[in-house]
Amino acid sequence: MLYADYTSSTPVLPEVKREMLPYFDELYANPSSLHDFALKARRAVEEARERVANLLGASAEEIIFTSGGAEANNLAIKGVVQANKARGRHVVVSAVEHYSIMHPLQSLAREGVQVTRVGVDEHGRVRVEELEQAIREDTILISVQHANHEVGSLQPIKEVAEIAEERGITFHCDGVSSAGVVPAKVEELGVDIYTLSAHRFYGPKGVGALYLARGTRLLPLIEGGIQERGYRAGTENVPGIVGMGKAAELAEKEMESRLEKLRRLRQRFIAEFLEEVPEAKINGHPSEVNPMYAHISVAGVEGETVVAELSAKGIYITSGSPCMARAAKASHVLAAMGLSAELIRGSMLFSLGIPMSEEEAEKLAREAGEVIRRLRGG
Amino acid sequence: MLYADYTSSTPVLPEVKREMLPYFDELYANPSSLHDFALKARRAVEEARERVANLLGASAEEIIFTSGGAEANNLAIKGVVQANKARGRHVVVSAVEHYSIMHPLQSLAREGVQVTRVGVDEHGRVRVEELEQAIREDTILISVQHANHEVGSLQPIKEVAEIAEERGITFHCDGVSSAGVVPAKVEELGVDIYTLSAHRFYGPKGVGALYLARGTRLLPLIEGGIQERGYRAGTENVPGIVGMGKAAELAEKEMESRLEKLRRLRQRFIAEFLEEVPEAKINGHPSEVNPMYAHISVAGVEGETVVAELSAKGIYITSGSPCMARAAKASHVLAAMGLSAELIRGSMLFSLGIPMSEEEAEKLAREAGEVIRRLRGG
Repeated sequence: MLYADYTSSTPVLPEVKREMLPYFDELYANPSSLHDFALKARRAVEEARERVANLLGASAEEIIFTSGGAEANNLAIKGVVQANKARGRHVVVSAVEHYSIMHPLQSLAREGVQVTRVGVDEHGRVRVEELEQAIREDTILISVQHANHEVGSLQPIKEVAEIAEERGITFHCDGVSSAGVVPAKVEELGVDIYTLSAHRFYGPKGVGALYLARGTRLLPLIEGGIQERGYRAGTENVPGIVGMGKAAELAEKEMESRLEKLRRLRQRFIAEFLEEVPEAKINGHPSEVNPMYAHISVAGVEGETVVAELSAKGIYITSGSPCMARAAKASHVLAAMGLSAELIRGSMLFSLGIPMSEEEAEKLAREAGEVIRRLRGG
Repeated sequence: MLYADYTSSTPVLPEVKREMLPYFDELYANPSSLHDFALKARRAVEEARERVANLLGASAEEIIFTSGGAEANNLAIKGVVQANKARGRHVVVSAVEHYSIMHPLQSLAREGVQVTRVGVDEHGRVRVEELEQAIREDTILISVQHANHEVGSLQPIKEVAEIAEERGITFHCDGVSSAGVVPAKVEELGVDIYTLSAHRFYGPKGVGALYLARGTRLLPLIEGGIQERGYRAGTENVPGIVGMGKAAELAEKEMESRLEKLRRLRQRFIAEFLEEVPEAKINGHPSEVNPMYAHISVAGVEGETVVAELSAKGIYITSGSPCMARAAKASHVLAAMGLSAELIRGSMLFSLGIPMSEEEAEKLAREAGEVIRRLRGG
């Protein structure tokens, strides 16, 4: 087996799993109970909160745990809009946001919220001048992802943050495809709200977080308890939160060495792939990119057929965003980047991870090249 | 240590944990990916769905996995109200629902939704005639819990269901404090929507489910993907869902023997407790009750002090709903049951679980009795 779908999900690291295990059947109290046994669970949650805060250079009290990136994005979008209704009802986003940003906005639009989608360049990066022009008197929220979820391009977050700050508008950044992989210090980025998903950086599925800068107004999505300072009710997923904390700690400590490895893997994979299929188009920004991503379009093949053919050989990649893969919808990201319908159809995402070796990256390129050449009758 | 706080959370059973483990680091694919490796994760989720459906006597396609009971209750309340806005804006609930029902309704009330809270008898059971009278032309939802979350009384669900069906009103039942413990076949109960929480029946925290009968209208709370048939976006918490499935399977298989044991434990505990503190008041219905619950009021003591004193001896109980315990609010449940302020202050919940022995149940009563007598200066 050769797994190259790390942007869809990552395995939980052994150290992460080990820290989670006692919280299933030994330290299983509800952290909200008032007795001493519950204290151990509560402390574990708070230690994890410190670790996630540390990854972002934030304070622990600015971290809200959620059930994952989708919930955190929904909470950010709906929560900011609900909390700021009296101030305005206009939201600015990039045209290449994830569905967990776009769909909540579509629902809010039915209630009178207006949304401006700002275009991107050929690398999928939002046009900052266009974004600035889109801002109105009644704009209450700007939301731009940190790394694009399909092609991995890093967005000009600092520039957007400066504009948002100047105008006094809340700025949310979806960091699901970046957090725990590339540096994301919230002060440096200048964001007010930032989304993280643990299973994207070797933590467990079913847990995520929202960084919420002090003073940012937000109403809860899941109500009915005072957990997470009232921003998110429900018994805490203690093992999941502990796992996210450990994964964040490791990500912070090993970030540079992991990035170096990923960049090397990516370079090697792309070089080899271009030898195999010289006419392939490498999508995403050439340098400002999350190095897990190698998103490629090849004219004359169907991405999904390549996925299936490689899968039959035990090689696992994807042809698009997993959240909508089974809906078989064309990618709005690639369309916004100006790719032709043929190149959109012929696109595939090879994603690299820290357990992968350079030999595997090369093998991945060779095997994919072989399948693609065969499919094109070459 | 003597744990008697099983209604706040239960330990994950060894068989449950064992089934979950491979999904952290072996079968870690995103179930939505299109390759064969993802198929294993997807099949595991679907098998768990079958098991949860089986516990309820439902079909697998009627089960929506969530991050827990709180999310499921919020989804039910907000989702039904949003989906039925055109038909009406009135909701009927009992006065003793959990905060994850009450708080969403408070938010909806700010948007013009009207809520009627129906009173309960001295055992905390909703007054069915009063409920029937509360129904209006524009009533779109009735929500009554299966077992009360503080005293354990079982509500007259079938009677409420008949009224709801007659009037063509969607009926939601919060089963967090009953599912997996007492029989809950949805056809028999007659509910349209039913909430479950895995960590309340020896499954993991961070996962729950909503039964949604075919044809019931509901809008999603977390949007942005086609997971859970579009009712709940976000990468599935595969290990958590697998754990919930196994816990449901075991609960279904062992329900009768577990109930028998719990009834025995409860009887023994209460008999012994009344010998220790003869003037204690046992709350909740004498027979129609989830036998995990032994909710007791004693005049002249503070429930929280008893919790703290027992905690210092390694005995863990609770004085109220853990979701609000740290907010130190007086219980709206006990107030609705007509308890005096003094008895509300002096109330405590001993909750029993399948790992407990009869000797432990007796010891629990003796130790609590000793603490209470000492606190009352007796």
